[in-house]
Amino acid sequence: MPMEHIEGRLSVLAALRARRRRFQVILVSYGAHEEKVAELLDTAQQLGVPVRRVATEELNALAHGTTHGGVLAICTPRPLTTFAELNERLDGVASPLLLLLEGIDDARNLGFTLRSAEALGAHAVLIKKHLWDFDTVEVSRPSSGAYERMDLLQIESVDPIVKLQQRGLRVWGCVAGAKRTMYDVDLRRPTILAIGGEKRGLSGAVRAICDGRLTVPTATAISSLSLSHASAIVLAEAMRQRRAADTASETTADGV
Amino acid sequence: MPMEHIEGRLSVLAALRARRRRFQVILVSYGAHEEKVAELLDTAQQLGVPVRRVATEELNALAHGTTHGGVLAICTPRPLTTFAELNERLDGVASPLLLLLEGIDDARNLGFTLRSAEALGAHAVLIKKHLWDFDTVEVSRPSSGAYERMDLLQIESVDPIVKLQQRGLRVWGCVAGAKRTMYDVDLRRPTILAIGGEKRGLSGAVRAICDGRLTVPTATAISSLSLSHASAIVLAEAMRQRRAADTASETTADGV
Repeated sequence: MPMEHIEGRLSVLAALRARRRRFQVILVSYGAHEEKVAELLDTAQQLGVPVRRVATEELNALAHGTTHGGVLAICTPRPLTTFAELNERLDGVASPLLLLLEGIDDARNLGFTLRSAEALGAHAVLIKKHLWDFDTVEVSRPSSGAYERMDLLQIESVDPIVKLQQRGLRVWGCVAGAKRTMYDVDLRRPTILAIGGEKRGLSGAVRAICDGRLTVPTATAISSLSLSHASAIVLAEAMRQRRAADTASETTADGV
Repeated sequence: MPMEHIEGRLSVLAALRARRRRFQVILVSYGAHEEKVAELLDTAQQLGVPVRRVATEELNALAHGTTHGGVLAICTPRPLTTFAELNERLDGVASPLLLLLEGIDDARNLGFTLRSAEALGAHAVLIKKHLWDFDTVEVSRPSSGAYERMDLLQIESVDPIVKLQQRGLRVWGCVAGAKRTMYDVDLRRPTILAIGGEKRGLSGAVRAICDGRLTVPTATAISSLSLSHASAIVLAEAMRQRRAADTASETTADGV
């Protein structure tokens, strides 16, 4: 299997803990801050992953980026989640909340989007894309570990979405100018939020299968939101509705 | 006055329309897509700003970045809004909503934050920072024009914040782990949302003057939000509350 890099202490630590990859070796430069890497070294030892100390120059020469801070791992790629695995995962979830991204090209934006998706309770992120050509170092860093932990699927057609609809999920296309706002839609139900890239929006194929469209209201016509910020806001709204539902049922339970 | 660059068609167009800068010249490469630059050329002509056609190589050599797409303007810096101007602006606003950022260093994150702040109805963004050392080309591009339009202030101490409190604004520190969530706080009132950088959070000086603290709830303890995404989510919540209030008062008016 081809090997790839993870760069930076926090990304490597997240990957070790997520246990999705097989590690060949973790390189730590002699110049690395000992207190900062202590937890990483402990975790590597517990998991039986070899650590090799190297000169800072050697590490710099290997690294793609400049923000590794003296830590670089050589390991298998993070395997994407399969559709079968997703289905199994969703069996254990009362009301799934998925994010479907289309037309996302920027690795850093994807990283930030994964971070927000995890923080806001999404159960998986589906990316509709023919070629999986992201620079994973660039995805990983802004994701703050979410790239290692999040269930992440690549899909090439809408077929998997249709199958998810058949198991009860509703697909909401997030579209500028839709009549309904995200506040008018019941996002407590099993939901897929579909968001398109800024250049072309959602494709015709995805629009055609949407159960409905919703918009994130903005203050002025001239202003707009980036894909990663629109994603975060609509996921936060789903989380708000779900929290409110939880609180309501708790109140009822107390009242009984 | 020292001159600076704006790069890219949309940034230059936004700057022309915002009319905060004085333009020396706009350079458009012979290779630029004529249909795409037509609106820019029209606007420049209307405002009496000279346009010069140059070879693509000349423009590449001048540009800081690589995403100019054949358009580069040489102009005065975008002047920051003064505190007097802010006060005057707020006189015309029923319930101000301001964003206060501290410890933000990354130009691109600032750009995205300005874009979201504008889209979500913030009236101004205050940045607490000693040295205004942002690469403005890097701020401008992801802001999608908001950098040119938004009221943006630099403050070095909390004094201006205290003065805004004296005119009735309440300062909410957005802090991980605060007891109160953003849903439990009345953000319809005149509000300053204070958000700190990811490394150090809000300073003691800002925390000391906060009227209260609130948190953006996240799904798990391990996950977190970036500064720009947390800003967007809490501003969206303020907007939701304000929209709900508007709808409620409309309903009341109808009912009378």
